Amino acid sequence: MSKHKIKGFVACAVKAGIKYKDRLDLGIVKSLSPARAAGVFTKNRVAAAPVILGRKNLRAGACSVIIANSGNANACTGARGLRDAELTAKCASEELGCPAKEVVVSSTGVIGVPLPVEKIRRGLKGASALLRENGFDDFSRAIMTTDSFPKIVMNSFAAGKSGVNLMGIAKGAGMIAPDMATMLCYIFTDGAITSAALRSALGGAVDSTFNRITVDGDMSTNDTVLLLASGASGAGGITPGSTDYRKFSAALGEVCAQLSRMMVRDGEGATKTFEVRVSGAPDAASAKAVAFRVANSPLVKTAVYGMDMNWGRLIGAAGATGARFDPDRIDIYIDSVKIVSRGISAGKSAEDRAGAIFREKKHFSVTFDLHAGKYSDRVLTCDLSHKYIDINASYRT
Amino acid sequence: MSKHKIKGFVACAVKAGIKYKDRLDLGIVKSLSPARAAGVFTKNRVAAAPVILGRKNLRAGACSVIIANSGNANACTGARGLRDAELTAKCASEELGCPAKEVVVSSTGVIGVPLPVEKIRRGLKGASALLRENGFDDFSRAIMTTDSFPKIVMNSFAAGKSGVNLMGIAKGAGMIAPDMATMLCYIFTDGAITSAALRSALGGAVDSTFNRITVDGDMSTNDTVLLLASGASGAGGITPGSTDYRKFSAALGEVCAQLSRMMVRDGEGATKTFEVRVSGAPDAASAKAVAFRVANSPLVKTAVYGMDMNWGRLIGAAGATGARFDPDRIDIYIDSVKIVSRGISAGKSAEDRAGAIFREKKHFSVTFDLHAGKYSDRVLTCDLSHKYIDINASYRT
Repeated sequence: MSKHKIKGFVACAVKAGIKYKDRLDLGIVKSLSPARAAGVFTKNRVAAAPVILGRKNLRAGACSVIIANSGNANACTGARGLRDAELTAKCASEELGCPAKEVVVSSTGVIGVPLPVEKIRRGLKGASALLRENGFDDFSRAIMTTDSFPKIVMNSFAAGKSGVNLMGIAKGAGMIAPDMATMLCYIFTDGAITSAALRSALGGAVDSTFNRITVDGDMSTNDTVLLLASGASGAGGITPGSTDYRKFSAALGEVCAQLSRMMVRDGEGATKTFEVRVSGAPDAASAKAVAFRVANSPLVKTAVYGMDMNWGRLIGAAGATGARFDPDRIDIYIDSVKIVSRGISAGKSAEDRAGAIFREKKHFSVTFDLHAGKYSDRVLTCDLSHKYIDINASYRT
Repeated sequence: MSKHKIKGFVACAVKAGIKYKDRLDLGIVKSLSPARAAGVFTKNRVAAAPVILGRKNLRAGACSVIIANSGNANACTGARGLRDAELTAKCASEELGCPAKEVVVSSTGVIGVPLPVEKIRRGLKGASALLRENGFDDFSRAIMTTDSFPKIVMNSFAAGKSGVNLMGIAKGAGMIAPDMATMLCYIFTDGAITSAALRSALGGAVDSTFNRITVDGDMSTNDTVLLLASGASGAGGITPGSTDYRKFSAALGEVCAQLSRMMVRDGEGATKTFEVRVSGAPDAASAKAVAFRVANSPLVKTAVYGMDMNWGRLIGAAGATGARFDPDRIDIYIDSVKIVSRGISAGKSAEDRAGAIFREKKHFSVTFDLHAGKYSDRVLTCDLSHKYIDINASYRT
């Protein structure tokens, strides 16, 4: 029996035949009573219809039902797309017994194709009978597109007699980029907490996790992170400023961080992951720019794939940002091995040891010390492989 | 006999064994009398030693000798690298009979490895005897790294009795990016023109050509464009503001544009090239940002490689820039076929016709009309293929 359950929520998934036959492609989560809710959505100017509707429906801070489909993103579908998202919410509200404005719809998949809303309507019929405590594993599979494994994490912290639990579910493997990834992420907690407090905690957690990963630098039209609180834990209320709020924020941050790592590990075609760490930057923007530039550089990513410890590409990418630093002072480390010292090679022995890390480890860090200030940042990414090309050269065909 | 010659200059190349045995890897051009000269160099903060020396030596606006090697970039080589570049210039000045400060040294190849300056010294010995009018083809081969073909273009315009000629030679296939590419480019003219006028004409030509191409978004430490004028044409002097200056600028722009196109066509692993055109942008920065974002998007580039006319990726990339436009007004064309009309699909027939262009043509345009203002820009790029990964995953090994 699944260990993935959380008080106050039930879930299920069905095969609606949206793009493929005979696979789970429509996931449903229901809160037994209206949950407090907060959301973070894509910053892409071209936002998908479900994102536009989701922003609107979350304004009141309450959510009872999540409907998420794979196979079709309902993006770049114009006025019809918005009507289809609204129709989906209406069908769900009727089937599952809640106001339509308490439904959040998510869609992921191909862009620019009208949502087969009739298939979704048929899929929803009778779905309420399938909702169950341990339906979250099915839900996590229904939202997968190019993901190679479902992504669920659990966390908890001590509070009151019962403790508070969190469960996070995400999908995302490619088009992972700052602000944010092609990702759908749903986090559930049984904690009792207001929607304003959820918004505050979620904003901080997303910025340091989902907004600090990149697979290919692309940004999706559908990115969504939802946080729902049922308040069913039995522990007391979690109020901003309290010890419990700090514990909650930390636990939430850990859920987001774990899901972020799972997404990068599952990056399309990824064979290795690496964290780019930048310290000694003259300002925060420079630290972030260097970290993302290195993490997104195709030359760096192919060098990691080829297990070729070509540090010239690392330093070249850092220099391309416009960040102000003295190239003759920069140090670079692979894990703890210093390979560049004051802008030049730290020697053959260091290069050999770093080369061994490139060849033998599945995950490592690349650390830049710019020696130009006190700001730092970090970004998690993966390599660029033949398989990435395979996946993306024929996604629709 | 080669048609690639230009009055006032001689050239040759030798096999110095810098990285590989038995290939031309050291090219030399000599101006028969000191040429007027202007240069544009990489904006990468991590500039290679020859770039640092080149900027200094060009300050007086005169150049007599170009020494360019492949196989080693002499970048990230610290104080030693600068001494090695100076030593190379000194050897060349002695062998070829000109002041060391009239020598411009260029290096391209692997980063972070000390320049084998002794091999270059030996390579230069006796090279002056090899210099000849038709040595430019050898020179163009000596500077190739991952290039699959040498790149030389000729141009001329009517002026005085004799006319004025230009010859451009470039290398560059990967790491091609804005501001600027991994490229070395040398343009020679027999026109009589001051170094100040050369600088002015070169700045304009580079910005609309070499700074508007991208292969993989990476920016090199060694990019260099040199423009040398021998004044040997026999036509009169070319002064700023004159008709001849306008003709010269146009001819120079065409040389740069042709070399740019050759570089993108030779982009590492490229199977197709496409120009991203943006119009109707609210400001110049937005037009440029959208054009580069689309041109650098791995998802767009793999879709072109896979001949999959996935326009959702085009509109998604445009939206990711932060440029202000209404997604419901955007139109997108593949060549002259409108595939997106007011933010949604222009229909199956249009998609089929655009799909045929993707499958059948080696070059096409992708045009965005944002309907949000009057600014426009354009960027030339290529697709992202398995071969790009092959080339870059094992460059050093």
